[in-house]
Amino acid sequence: MLEKTTRMNYLYDFYQSLLTPKQSSYMSLYYLDDYSLGEIAEEYHVSRQAVYDNIKRTEAMLEEYEEKLLLFHKFQERAKIIAKLKSNFQPESLKEQYEALLEELEKLD
Amino acid sequence: MLEKTTRMNYLYDFYQSLLTPKQSSYMSLYYLDDYSLGEIAEEYHVSRQAVYDNIKRTEAMLEEYEEKLLLFHKFQERAKIIAKLKSNFQPESLKEQYEALLEELEKLD
Repeated sequence: MLEKTTRMNYLYDFYQSLLTPKQSSYMSLYYLDDYSLGEIAEEYHVSRQAVYDNIKRTEAMLEEYEEKLLLFHKFQERAKIIAKLKSNFQPESLKEQYEALLEELEKLD
Repeated sequence: MLEKTTRMNYLYDFYQSLLTPKQSSYMSLYYLDDYSLGEIAEEYHVSRQAVYDNIKRTEAMLEEYEEKLLLFHKFQERAKIIAKLKSNFQPESLKEQYEALLEELEKLD
């Protein structure tokens, strides 16, 4: 559950600009501000079921965008490479490895 | 004109997974394979105007996606940083600059 929440937070972060204002509000309240479905329903004067359905649909949309654009996946890959670059960096050596990592980074764009 | 073509090629590359198969075909024929509007119209048994309208709409969609997600913009920014990393890399020195560039790269994700 918690891992799913983390993933959804990331997907929301990457793709929120593609959501409608209402989708974005519900997701933000639910995932970032930790509102319950009932609290969001009260705030918007709609049923708890309506909020639930909307959030479920939005989650599916975010997963679809990720399937198509892979922004979260690429972000994770880049983070790994950058971590390697940082930990392996030794000014006096390893030039070859360094360049190989940079090539890899470039291909991910 | 040529600069616009290059930009559209990039936008198409970044966002083609979000287009319908027909939009994608028209764009690919027009921008990648250099077909004329008339040739595409003939291939698909539709009017030249229909192809033109479809491509214009698709171009507008691609620009909208770029406005929202900035994938092409970030790609260009990353390419600049990577070029700097490559040209400035001197194993025996410049460690500080190197780390600054990596930080910059990280923020772009």
